[in-house]
Amino acid sequence: MAGSVRGFRFGAVSAGIRKDGRIDVALAVADRPAVVAGLVTRNLVKAAPILVASERLPAGLARAVLVNSGCANACTGEPGLAAARQATEAIARELDASPEQVLPASTGVIGALLPAEKIAAKAKELVAGLSADRADDFALAICTTDRWPKVAEATIETPNGKVALLGIAKGAGMIHPDVGPPHATMLVFLFTDARIERAELERALVPAADHSFNAISVDGDTSTNDFVVALASGASDIAVSAAELGPALLDVCKQLARSMVVDGEGAEHAVDIAVRGLPSEADARRVAHTVATSLLVKTALFGRDANWGRLLAAAGRSGVAFDPSRASISIAGVEIVRNGLTLGAAAEAEAQKLMSASAFAVELVLGSGPGAFTYLTSDLGHSYVDVNAGYRS
Amino acid sequence: MAGSVRGFRFGAVSAGIRKDGRIDVALAVADRPAVVAGLVTRNLVKAAPILVASERLPAGLARAVLVNSGCANACTGEPGLAAARQATEAIARELDASPEQVLPASTGVIGALLPAEKIAAKAKELVAGLSADRADDFALAICTTDRWPKVAEATIETPNGKVALLGIAKGAGMIHPDVGPPHATMLVFLFTDARIERAELERALVPAADHSFNAISVDGDTSTNDFVVALASGASDIAVSAAELGPALLDVCKQLARSMVVDGEGAEHAVDIAVRGLPSEADARRVAHTVATSLLVKTALFGRDANWGRLLAAAGRSGVAFDPSRASISIAGVEIVRNGLTLGAAAEAEAQKLMSASAFAVELVLGSGPGAFTYLTSDLGHSYVDVNAGYRS
Repeated sequence: MAGSVRGFRFGAVSAGIRKDGRIDVALAVADRPAVVAGLVTRNLVKAAPILVASERLPAGLARAVLVNSGCANACTGEPGLAAARQATEAIARELDASPEQVLPASTGVIGALLPAEKIAAKAKELVAGLSADRADDFALAICTTDRWPKVAEATIETPNGKVALLGIAKGAGMIHPDVGPPHATMLVFLFTDARIERAELERALVPAADHSFNAISVDGDTSTNDFVVALASGASDIAVSAAELGPALLDVCKQLARSMVVDGEGAEHAVDIAVRGLPSEADARRVAHTVATSLLVKTALFGRDANWGRLLAAAGRSGVAFDPSRASISIAGVEIVRNGLTLGAAAEAEAQKLMSASAFAVELVLGSGPGAFTYLTSDLGHSYVDVNAGYRS
Repeated sequence: MAGSVRGFRFGAVSAGIRKDGRIDVALAVADRPAVVAGLVTRNLVKAAPILVASERLPAGLARAVLVNSGCANACTGEPGLAAARQATEAIARELDASPEQVLPASTGVIGALLPAEKIAAKAKELVAGLSADRADDFALAICTTDRWPKVAEATIETPNGKVALLGIAKGAGMIHPDVGPPHATMLVFLFTDARIERAELERALVPAADHSFNAISVDGDTSTNDFVVALASGASDIAVSAAELGPALLDVCKQLARSMVVDGEGAEHAVDIAVRGLPSEADARRVAHTVATSLLVKTALFGRDANWGRLLAAAGRSGVAFDPSRASISIAGVEIVRNGLTLGAAAEAEAQKLMSASAFAVELVLGSGPGAFTYLTSDLGHSYVDVNAGYRS
C-alpha cells in the first residue's frame, strides 16, 4: 500500500466513462498551490488534455491533477479542448481554486470526446472523498490494460529531516515514451513534500525521465497522451536542490518505468538492452533503441532464442558506425559472441536456458569507447497480438 | 511458369545445406559476360557473400550468380569470406570463367558458416543441369520461409523489336529492405536480354528499387544479406536506355515487392499506406514509413479495426510537421476522418467491413502539398509470432 506525502490528498470515483463500471476518474489535490513541472508527449498529435495542461504548466503552480481513463480525448478538436476545460472547471469550483491550477490528463481510446458532464456530476463526491491515504485508489483509477497499479516510493534523508517522494504511473501499451519539456499513454504523477523551486524541479525531472521513461519500449509507439508531472507541496518545509532530489527521483522513475515494461501488453520478459563501447551515449542510445524495438529481436526473446544474429543485424541497421568484427554479445551474463563470431552452440544453449527468466540483460559491446546506454524492452508474443488486435472491440 | 530470357540459363540442385533436403543451391549463368548492376544491404553488418559481391560488382560484368538458401553466411568472419570465394571458384571452374565474374548470394540463418565444399561437390551437376527454361527451379531453390516462389516478367516493345525482362525474388521475413548502390534477406535477380551500358542499367535500377523494395516493410528489420542484382545479356542485340528500361523494370520490381509482402511471414493483408499532401516526397515517405512499421497499426490491421487514432498517432510521431486538424484518413476508399475529426461510427463500420480484404489501401491526406509516397505493409498477427519465435528451433 502506498504511503502518504504531506500536503497531498487523493481520491477516485466511477463516473461511468468506462463501460465496465470500474473507477475511472482520479484526483490528486495539493492543500496549497504546489510547485509543478511537467513533460508532455513529443508526438505532433497531442490530445486535448495535453494541450490544456501545456497552457497551464508555465505558471509553475498547480492545485490538482484530474485524470480519467476510458477516453483519451485525443483527436477531438475544439470540442475536446472545451471538454477538458469544463471538467477541470468543475473540480476547481469544488476546490475553490483557479481552473488554471487544475491539470487534466486522459488515457483510453483515441477519437472519443471526453464526457465532461459525467465528471462534473461527480466533482462533489470526488472532492469529498479526498484523503491523504488514498493514493492506491488514484493509481487504480488510471489503469487501462494494466494488470496492476504502479506505485513507487523513496525517502530522501537531508540534514534537516526526511523528504518523501511518491510516484504513480500507468502503462501498459502504446509505450514508447518520448517526453520533453511540455511530452504520455504513459501517465506519471510524482508527488513530493520537499520545498523546491520550479526551475530546480524541472532540472531534476528532465534527466530522470530521459533515463527511465524515455529509455523503455513496449511497442515503439509514442502516445498522443503521454504526460509526466511532478508536484512539490513544500509541506515538509525542507528545501532541496535538483542535485539532492535527482537521485531519488530517478530511482522512483526507474521503478515505475520497469513496472510498465514488466506489465507491457502481453510481455513475459523484461529485457535490458545494454549497449556500450561506442564513441558517445547518443550512439549507444540509438543502437539500444533499434535493438529494443526490432520485431525479430522481440519475437526471439518471446521464443527464448539466443538469436545473436538478429541482435547484431539490428545494431547494424541503426545507422551508428561500429566494427562488427569487434562486437561481443552476452545474454543473461553468458558471452555468446566475441569479435563478431559465435562462441559455439554450448554457450548459446547455456544462454538460452537463462532466457526463461522474467528479467535478464542482453549486452552488446561494440568497441572500446566510453558511450553506453541501456534500453528496457519486452518480448513480443501472442498476448500482445491479442491485446492489440482486439483493443477497441 | 517463368519464360526464358535470351542469353541466360538456370539450374538448381540440393546440396544438403538445408536440413530438409529441398533444393538449396541456385545458379544463373549468362552465356557471355553480362552487364551487371547491383545494390546491396545498407546494414552495417554485411554477410560474407555481400562483401564478396561488392568487391566484384564494380568490374561491371558477370557470368553467373550463385545463390544458396539454408545459410546466410553472415557474421562468419574471414572463414565466411573464404567460403563464399571457394564456392564461386568451384562454379567458375566448371564454367571456364573468372571467379571474379561469379556473384555469390546467401539466405538463411545468421552465424552459420557456408559449407562451400557441399556446393563444390555439386558444381558439375549444377552446371550440367543448366537450361534456359529452368528459371522456376532457380526461384524455388532460393526460398526460405516463402510460401511460394516469386517470379515476374515484362516485355519492352522497342522500334527494333522486343526485349524481355525476368525478375526472381525471395521474401519473406526480415523484410524492410534498404538497398543502395552496393543493398537483401530479400534477394532479387533481374535478367534482361537488352543491350545496355552499365551506367544506364544502374540508372534504371536505383529508382526502380527505391520505389518498390525500399518501399515495403514486413517487420522493419533490414537484413544483412539483402541483394538486388540486374544482369543484361545483350542477346537480343537491341540497345535500350535507362529511360526505356525503367518503367518495365519498375513494374517487375513492384510485382516482386508486392509478392513479398503478400507472402510476408504470417501476413493476411497487404496494405498500401498512401500518404499525400506534404511539402515533399521525403516527408511523405517518412510518415508512410512510420505508419507502415507501427506495431499498433499492424496489429489493428490484423484485427480489422479501423483504428484511425493509431494511424494519426503514428503519423504524429514521425517527426514530420503537419497540421493534425487538417488531416483526412480513408480506409479501403471510405473516408473516416476529415479535418482531424471522426466522421462517425457508421463510416468506421463501413471501412471495417472492407478490411477483411486481402489487399486494400489506407490513405492519409495531411495537407495540400505535392509530396506523396506509398509504403506497402502487412498486418501482424499470431502467425508472425509463430514463424519468428520458432525460426531457429
